[in-house]
Amino acid sequence: MLVIGENINASNRNVGQAIAAKDSEFIASLARRQAEAGVDFIDVNAGSTQGSWYSPEAAMEWLVDVVRSVTDKPLSIDSDLPDVIAAGLHRCHGEKIIINSVNAESSRLQSIGPLAAEHGSLVVALAMRAGTIPKRLDERLAACDSIMSALQLMGVKEEQVLFDPLVLPVSVDTGQAVVTLRTIEGIKSRFPSARTVVGLSNISYGLPNRAMVNRAFLLMAAAVGLDAAILNPLDARTMNLVTVADLLMGHDAACRAYIRAYRKGLLTG
Amino acid sequence: MLVIGENINASNRNVGQAIAAKDSEFIASLARRQAEAGVDFIDVNAGSTQGSWYSPEAAMEWLVDVVRSVTDKPLSIDSDLPDVIAAGLHRCHGEKIIINSVNAESSRLQSIGPLAAEHGSLVVALAMRAGTIPKRLDERLAACDSIMSALQLMGVKEEQVLFDPLVLPVSVDTGQAVVTLRTIEGIKSRFPSARTVVGLSNISYGLPNRAMVNRAFLLMAAAVGLDAAILNPLDARTMNLVTVADLLMGHDAACRAYIRAYRKGLLTG
Repeated sequence: MLVIGENINASNRNVGQAIAAKDSEFIASLARRQAEAGVDFIDVNAGSTQGSWYSPEAAMEWLVDVVRSVTDKPLSIDSDLPDVIAAGLHRCHGEKIIINSVNAESSRLQSIGPLAAEHGSLVVALAMRAGTIPKRLDERLAACDSIMSALQLMGVKEEQVLFDPLVLPVSVDTGQAVVTLRTIEGIKSRFPSARTVVGLSNISYGLPNRAMVNRAFLLMAAAVGLDAAILNPLDARTMNLVTVADLLMGHDAACRAYIRAYRKGLLTG
Repeated sequence: MLVIGENINASNRNVGQAIAAKDSEFIASLARRQAEAGVDFIDVNAGSTQGSWYSPEAAMEWLVDVVRSVTDKPLSIDSDLPDVIAAGLHRCHGEKIIINSVNAESSRLQSIGPLAAEHGSLVVALAMRAGTIPKRLDERLAACDSIMSALQLMGVKEEQVLFDPLVLPVSVDTGQAVVTLRTIEGIKSRFPSARTVVGLSNISYGLPNRAMVNRAFLLMAAAVGLDAAILNPLDARTMNLVTVADLLMGHDAACRAYIRAYRKGLLTG
């Protein structure tokens, strides 16, 4: 499973303060620790507001530079604003990246699709139209169909797309975890060359003991074919379960990665 | 998810010694603790050998009586020997029980099928013919087809059957967890009124840190529709994950069981 480290996100208060204070050591440390934890991509989200020294575009460029000063791990350029994505993407000078994200809104597809096509980037595609997350499976799959049609017209290949089936809290509607699982299955069956990705934490919103629910949901999603997750790689137990999920899904030849993690003393909890 | 407590099994050395010594307090305590842990069924396996004071049939009858002296939880009567199953079943005096188990061998179907039909029992059906567990999905599903045809001819209804898709160790063949998951899906799609059940622990045979692998596999199997598990209910973390799996599969209205477990301080780890 591909792991996309979620920690460098301006919506996290410490990260927001580090951006405002141009505290490159704080950001560099987060990047370094995620790289050491074994992520495949580091997500970089600079927020969408201006600050004393920066536009959102400038903040994204600064974050990319700071992360690049300490690690070569590929980046996931994450923003609600197409111009900020473009700024981050150009700052990566042709590297392989993930664009995070598009949805089925045509304005967003029209601004992001050509960037993904031109640069051959991976692109996260949220299974929704504008505004709110659809509650039903058929609505989410219809959004995926629209997105794939539009992206393919623009020259993006199926294998560049990482569909996010989206996650709503089970505390609000106990049927929602199953909707997400069925959406993953539906995407895998419609688009065999595309991949699926989720952000975990929304599933447990409003419940006590959230980390346990998030970890359980990661395994359940892996069982139906999840290919990637946006998560906190500094949580060792979550990373252990990625190792176990890979083992059980047949992605760990001769159990080598599992045994290696065990020998390093990582497989606790 | 239905939980079948596995602890009263003569293949466990302490249980075997308790049977030999007719130590009813040891067996009663195991039954009581499993009942308190919230199992739905208590499995009872008396082994298949004779002892100083008992035939296997007499040992089964004694175990049933001892368990019944401390709890009303339904029983799973577990034996390789049809006569021992018949003895245990008759000792239950018409209660709802699980017969554990049949497979696709015709001699076994012919001895066990009529008992299940006559008593309206649930019956565990192993997805195999005689001898060894098939490695391939199609072979396991073919065994399920044979079993269901035979049982239905004898008057057993689809909803009485709990299919065990069977589990082989990933340490021997890393593709085996996926074979089990796909077998569960295949059974659910062929026999929508039947249920599925697994014993977990074989998955992790030969690996270090087995409990972590077993627990992860329980969640992954739940995601593809597992209805029941034969497990050690005295492992609190496993029972927590049953609660979480029920929550995420939409079987816990208003998250009540999850919140109740949390308030009791059970949801640790």
